[in-house]
Amino acid sequence: MSAKKKKMLKDVGEWGLLKWLYSEIGRHLCGRMDVAVGIGDDSAVVNVNGPIRIAITTDALIEGIHFERTYSTPYDLGWKALAVNLSDLAATFAEPIAAFVTVALPSDTTIAWVRQFYRGMIDLAERFDVAILGGDTSSSEDGIFISVSAIGRCGDKLPARSNAKPGSSVIVTGTLGESAIGLLALQRLGRETVMRSRTLKRLAERHLRPVPRLKEGLVALSTGLCECAIDVSDGLVSDLSRVAEMSGVRIRLWFENLPISPQAIEASKQLACSPLEMALYGGEDYELLMTIPTEYAHQVCNTIESSCKVKCSIIGVVEAGKPYVYGIDERGKHLRLAGGYEHFRA
Amino acid sequence: MSAKKKKMLKDVGEWGLLKWLYSEIGRHLCGRMDVAVGIGDDSAVVNVNGPIRIAITTDALIEGIHFERTYSTPYDLGWKALAVNLSDLAATFAEPIAAFVTVALPSDTTIAWVRQFYRGMIDLAERFDVAILGGDTSSSEDGIFISVSAIGRCGDKLPARSNAKPGSSVIVTGTLGESAIGLLALQRLGRETVMRSRTLKRLAERHLRPVPRLKEGLVALSTGLCECAIDVSDGLVSDLSRVAEMSGVRIRLWFENLPISPQAIEASKQLACSPLEMALYGGEDYELLMTIPTEYAHQVCNTIESSCKVKCSIIGVVEAGKPYVYGIDERGKHLRLAGGYEHFRA
Repeated sequence: MSAKKKKMLKDVGEWGLLKWLYSEIGRHLCGRMDVAVGIGDDSAVVNVNGPIRIAITTDALIEGIHFERTYSTPYDLGWKALAVNLSDLAATFAEPIAAFVTVALPSDTTIAWVRQFYRGMIDLAERFDVAILGGDTSSSEDGIFISVSAIGRCGDKLPARSNAKPGSSVIVTGTLGESAIGLLALQRLGRETVMRSRTLKRLAERHLRPVPRLKEGLVALSTGLCECAIDVSDGLVSDLSRVAEMSGVRIRLWFENLPISPQAIEASKQLACSPLEMALYGGEDYELLMTIPTEYAHQVCNTIESSCKVKCSIIGVVEAGKPYVYGIDERGKHLRLAGGYEHFRA
Repeated sequence: MSAKKKKMLKDVGEWGLLKWLYSEIGRHLCGRMDVAVGIGDDSAVVNVNGPIRIAITTDALIEGIHFERTYSTPYDLGWKALAVNLSDLAATFAEPIAAFVTVALPSDTTIAWVRQFYRGMIDLAERFDVAILGGDTSSSEDGIFISVSAIGRCGDKLPARSNAKPGSSVIVTGTLGESAIGLLALQRLGRETVMRSRTLKRLAERHLRPVPRLKEGLVALSTGLCECAIDVSDGLVSDLSRVAEMSGVRIRLWFENLPISPQAIEASKQLACSPLEMALYGGEDYELLMTIPTEYAHQVCNTIESSCKVKCSIIGVVEAGKPYVYGIDERGKHLRLAGGYEHFRA
């Protein structure tokens, strides 16, 4: 089909888009007992029973800042926009209930684009039993803006960022740096080349379609031993610095224990980047970072590994002291670490 | 102070902005017992007790589509971004609990701009006892994007858009068309001129800082007589058309009963526009539109008027028939009505 013939949003208007969405999302919501009012009304309404707490989070993806259409497909974007929110719920040890999607799109966006976007989001939603319950659709003058909010159930035990205690160990799920290396590959080599290499494809998919560590969070919660949790979004050092600052503690990282995959090392050679730097500063790994009293750290890692079939590593220790993150380099030098992605900074 | 000396977001970075926000919002949240985790963590957490339902809504304001910086101050935008969401909760007869704010701003946005933006939002939040619990701050390449989500408590009785019944009356709070006339004045005459005229200022403020009809919704709920509610955002005809379509009913409007204020009529003359058209199609009035069994319509209007000190008018009737909205003009002609703002339409 030629580009000229493709149906665009301006051909069907907002109401045309909404009617399609209502039926598509209606199907996705079919049979859910916890949804009192689904998509299409002023607010959605969910039932919550008993003494329960609701966790709420919101996160945006903005074209030119968080993604480029040259390497992200609409399916990837729909998936990722929801995934980054579910990752926040994971770091709150919450069980997701529902998500709300605001998208602003240029009027010449094709209908096919929109369908693929929601397809990616619904596929991830169904994998984790999340109800997409509405949102807002708007035109934009230029560029794509996506904002998703998500709510979940959580209990009394909350892993606050301000609760890291001296003497505790820092643990992390999965691997670090893969998302950033995947992004670098996409930017330098283009999507087509990347997707032809098995190694690079795996890393790029970590960036494009991250999988939130929801089960890992709930398993960590079930141990009753986690003090503090945060997801790795801005970068390991940046996210741990926030924990350090909010808990008033110093955090030491053991560089040699950082979980860097053989694929990350292989791709780093090809791309001439440092896998250690990518693990420390790259961000968007969406792994769960937690602090656990040291005597239980191995036990919690083992429990997560055996329940979730995911690696879990002890990567550092919380210490009393001025709030910052540091490591000791191979010459025994104390390296104070800072940096990672920060919006607005020139 | 010269423009050059003004501090911008790029001077303080995201973390600088967040630190300020945490303390500003922390003060605003002080002493709230229903907030378990406030701003600054992965998710916020609210306590809900007993068998309760949570209503959730989300709505965006996009520069160039929903507003222009030439006539909207940052204070107005902060206020309005929250107000449009509270208006959705009002139309769900929900009592607001909390709101979440995502803003994407160019890096050269001044700190003063950001402060005023949150000031407007916090002022409205405190008026209606809403806790601002977090969100996401991001840079944008160009243009301002604001997305707010809000949650509220609601009960079993929900006024769905699909529940308008033939024979019922359509009622509306307040007045119609003022917001659109105010916007027209701002666009044609500029903010400064508008704010010097008492009449135009009132209308412009309806557009810039709408007041959500939360109390009116709760009073309507307390009567137990409302079938259906929606807020007037896209325009009376457009919003009623959605009710007609979702309820499978025809709706007749009585033009002579539409609540058009003397100020709206006066300003319309000055601006050479039709106040009736503005009331029908203008939108952004954020009034509550409800259907009530006709025998109780007067009673509900009186209850709302006496409890909330706001006018409440019976403006039409729900009929069986193909789903559309119509009126009878002065020559007795059946006028099928359609239109109002729709995103994406060329």
